[in-house]
Amino acid sequence: MFRIVEGPIDVGAVILAAQRPDCGAVSAFVGTTRVDRSGEAFVRYLEYEAYRPMADRKLREIGEEIQRRWDARHVSIVHRIGRVDPGEASVAIAVAAPRRDEAFQASRYAIERIKQVVPIWKREVWSDGYVWVGSQVGTRPAAQTG
Amino acid sequence: MFRIVEGPIDVGAVILAAQRPDCGAVSAFVGTTRVDRSGEAFVRYLEYEAYRPMADRKLREIGEEIQRRWDARHVSIVHRIGRVDPGEASVAIAVAAPRRDEAFQASRYAIERIKQVVPIWKREVWSDGYVWVGSQVGTRPAAQTG
Repeated sequence: MFRIVEGPIDVGAVILAAQRPDCGAVSAFVGTTRVDRSGEAFVRYLEYEAYRPMADRKLREIGEEIQRRWDARHVSIVHRIGRVDPGEASVAIAVAAPRRDEAFQASRYAIERIKQVVPIWKREVWSDGYVWVGSQVGTRPAAQTG
Repeated sequence: MFRIVEGPIDVGAVILAAQRPDCGAVSAFVGTTRVDRSGEAFVRYLEYEAYRPMADRKLREIGEEIQRRWDARHVSIVHRIGRVDPGEASVAIAVAAPRRDEAFQASRYAIERIKQVVPIWKREVWSDGYVWVGSQVGTRPAAQTG
């Protein structure tokens, strides 16, 4: 399942679809909107934009790469675009493999590759402006009003 | 959330409970019943037994260990006991952290520690007998009828 969606991601469904009788492990990753409220300004929400259909194709290519490198029997990547509020999921990944070591490696690889090659951009909407940032998860650059 | 349950695990709910506005990443692991049908005999289902309340306490201790070692803001471990059919989840882990590297490390650590210290035993029920095995996920010893 490789999808770009405009509403909330049903993470439970993504994982359930990955579970298979020939696999003992599903490793899943969920990227969520993180806000840092330690300063006076704060992120109110994130907004994602994708360049489609390139983004859709790149998600499928990452799945193919993973299945060439590891004994992964199922790979799903679902990325949300549009506004994503604090704590909500922007991306969900689920990889099933016979053994857990391969599942963990492949799921980690998926999120790194998404950040490298999928044309999806993130805008942080702050209480006092906004800033475009390149990566989907984890980073919080200094605020710039725009 | 540290629980031993006797019915299906609601994996989506375990992950949703982990999502927090101060975290950018949730790494989840789901251990599932794997069957190998390449031979004449095959695993029909698994059966788990726990020595409680020791098992409950050990799950909580693993959560505490993780929160000492990593900046993990939420840890959940739910383990199912009783009969678990092929493809179904026997254990679900979800760790939320501000950054994905810590989330992945902590979730991987959790499943390794569960196998080391939690008194839960697994019985493989085969088409032609059963065999007790020590580990919760991933291994498939040669069949022994019992």
